[in-house]
Amino acid sequence: MKTSIDPAAIASLDRHDPLRSKREEFILPHDVIYLDGNSLGPLPKAALRELKIAAEQEWGAHLIRSWNEAGWFDLPATLGDRIARLIGAAPGETVVTDTTSINIYKAIHAGLNLRPDRSVIVAESTAFPSDIYVTEGAASARPDLRVKLEGVDSPRIEDLLGDEVGVVLVNHVDYRTGVLRDMSALTRRIHAAGAIAIWDLSHSVGVLKIDLNAAGADFAVGCTYKYLNGGPGAPAFVFAARRHHGKLSQPLTGWWAHANPFAFDRCFTPGDGIRPMLCGTQPILSMRALAGALELWQEVDLDQLREKSLKLTDLFIALVEESCGSFGIALAAPRERSIRGSQVSLRHLHGYEVMQALIERGVIGDFRSPDYMRFGFAPLYLSYADVYSAAKILHDILANGTWRASRFAMRGTVT
Amino acid sequence: MKTSIDPAAIASLDRHDPLRSKREEFILPHDVIYLDGNSLGPLPKAALRELKIAAEQEWGAHLIRSWNEAGWFDLPATLGDRIARLIGAAPGETVVTDTTSINIYKAIHAGLNLRPDRSVIVAESTAFPSDIYVTEGAASARPDLRVKLEGVDSPRIEDLLGDEVGVVLVNHVDYRTGVLRDMSALTRRIHAAGAIAIWDLSHSVGVLKIDLNAAGADFAVGCTYKYLNGGPGAPAFVFAARRHHGKLSQPLTGWWAHANPFAFDRCFTPGDGIRPMLCGTQPILSMRALAGALELWQEVDLDQLREKSLKLTDLFIALVEESCGSFGIALAAPRERSIRGSQVSLRHLHGYEVMQALIERGVIGDFRSPDYMRFGFAPLYLSYADVYSAAKILHDILANGTWRASRFAMRGTVT
Repeated sequence: MKTSIDPAAIASLDRHDPLRSKREEFILPHDVIYLDGNSLGPLPKAALRELKIAAEQEWGAHLIRSWNEAGWFDLPATLGDRIARLIGAAPGETVVTDTTSINIYKAIHAGLNLRPDRSVIVAESTAFPSDIYVTEGAASARPDLRVKLEGVDSPRIEDLLGDEVGVVLVNHVDYRTGVLRDMSALTRRIHAAGAIAIWDLSHSVGVLKIDLNAAGADFAVGCTYKYLNGGPGAPAFVFAARRHHGKLSQPLTGWWAHANPFAFDRCFTPGDGIRPMLCGTQPILSMRALAGALELWQEVDLDQLREKSLKLTDLFIALVEESCGSFGIALAAPRERSIRGSQVSLRHLHGYEVMQALIERGVIGDFRSPDYMRFGFAPLYLSYADVYSAAKILHDILANGTWRASRFAMRGTVT
Repeated sequence: MKTSIDPAAIASLDRHDPLRSKREEFILPHDVIYLDGNSLGPLPKAALRELKIAAEQEWGAHLIRSWNEAGWFDLPATLGDRIARLIGAAPGETVVTDTTSINIYKAIHAGLNLRPDRSVIVAESTAFPSDIYVTEGAASARPDLRVKLEGVDSPRIEDLLGDEVGVVLVNHVDYRTGVLRDMSALTRRIHAAGAIAIWDLSHSVGVLKIDLNAAGADFAVGCTYKYLNGGPGAPAFVFAARRHHGKLSQPLTGWWAHANPFAFDRCFTPGDGIRPMLCGTQPILSMRALAGALELWQEVDLDQLREKSLKLTDLFIALVEESCGSFGIALAAPRERSIRGSQVSLRHLHGYEVMQALIERGVIGDFRSPDYMRFGFAPLYLSYADVYSAAKILHDILANGTWRASRFAMRGTVT
């Protein structure tokens, strides 16, 4: 690979990386450059440790007593408060529970219940499809509700806003292109139209400095198994701004949302604060692994995190554009920092086969229909040298055409 | 404790117990007689083994590839099919996913969508409260829906059935009293009234021989962390009879329910079979522990299981009635075998304190408001000698009044 970028400069970036030591806190295979943290984050040592304690000591030895003694019952709130620091939430505004799709469903209903005279839900046609499916599912429950999609009903969300719109569901970072929205500006527009803003942070939490309260967001949901490294399918989170507490209601009313769950009362009395966003009993082993994973974040400086994310993606974009431009590769991610998440997507007519060839060489990204290769750059465990190596391997595969021989083995992977 | 029951007879029961060897497959604390398996089952060795493999090898070493290679994506179906044998379901009729409360919500909507001209949901006022809360939550989504409760609107479910009733949600075994319903008879009555029958098997799966298809049940839900020993908050299951497949719809439409989830299609096309009952990405670590726990069940004879359950509860009832009858104890569980689950509930004016004293002596059951002491009898890991010891300790506490000194420490435990 011929490039104007000096390898000594890359080594220097790594030497001066303030987050460099974080890599030691992960268990990473030696033969892999892992650029799929936007899909499934790798295993933190602390997650493994906590999982072992949860299984052997809490479950095995202390059994039912651990619901109280090990704080199992309070995990939605305690883990929510750990995430709060990463998303600009105050304590008591976030809980970890259920799945992202289910939390979207709850947030849409809770938002609509705050705007009972409005009947339109706005979402994006480019959203991760489950966001759209569950939005349409929520609308199906009430005959008066309608969904309008950016990209179908109008090119821009702003043009869909009107006095019928109750809630707007927006992804902070697009799962396919890595494009970042301006949360403050769009939330202002949504509020000016009288609607409720729900932000899906699945592809931004853990790589950006998010400030939900500064932006005035009403609700947010997000995934913990991507950049937060909580483990496969780890429970999701949901945020509701404090100004809505006391007015929160949604139809998935389970006993964990009750003001006094252990009274086993026949009548539902919603708990205070964020509690009405809970439903039933949570998968504690998965929650406890996530608890370990979240320990890593307690001292991470989010400005350093964002700066490293931008430098990693700057470097990858520069290397690819300089060395791979002639091989049918098109950059689908923004060059401009202000609208870039922590993911670089490249399009290639044979992107599926090229990604297979990369994976065979140990560079793990993923593929999204129709022709997107996605590379996620997680600042906690990636080095600038990793980025250089990944770009070089991509160059070699394209230059030598080895992707033409790659196996057709992959069915797909979970975002 | 004076009793007519011969200790030699108890030793003989244990010697001839065909399930005796199963106890070796659990990690149980040595100083405990665990009668709370109806709340949280103990740790199976296989669950610990599978959890370790899932964390270290599948997540840690193989990362994103495990979604396909380790079968993570198929776990709802593969685990559902393992449970099928225990509930009389055919392969492909059951999935493990989400929580019991959320699955009730889905089943109620799916049932109502099969009876679009009907608007009443019938449930039990004595159900575990979350069943009632989520039923009312489901009803709140549509202004025409109403809930009628056995015990409030009429003493018997049978008298609430009429041509407005779309679905009926019934618990197979009552969580507080342990009373077992006749599933076949009640399902026939529900069908005769044109309604859909949803059975909550949380307190019967793993201790009874259940036959959903013989009974003609439409839907069923259940918990996997009680008698199935799947781990704290392990994901729940939902069953839908094959005759309804192709017509299943419910509003929590996530991408795991899609016919082709990896096409990332903007439009929702429901998958076939039971798949429309799925929603979003599942907590894999909790699912994999459950996978281990379910291995234990593959060779269990369900007739032997039920017979041992009845003998264990027969013995406990006999010992308690003979030796504790004069201490203010009232039996709340049925003496009659045909309507008894695998739990014996005793009422006592100071049941809370008596249960605390039992726990301090290593006999772990639990307490449910207002005055129920619950004792669950799991045939896989309990011996007849355990039952004798537990009854003796209860007798001693009552005879000596030591419960008056027991600490007021317990907030409550999760059913």
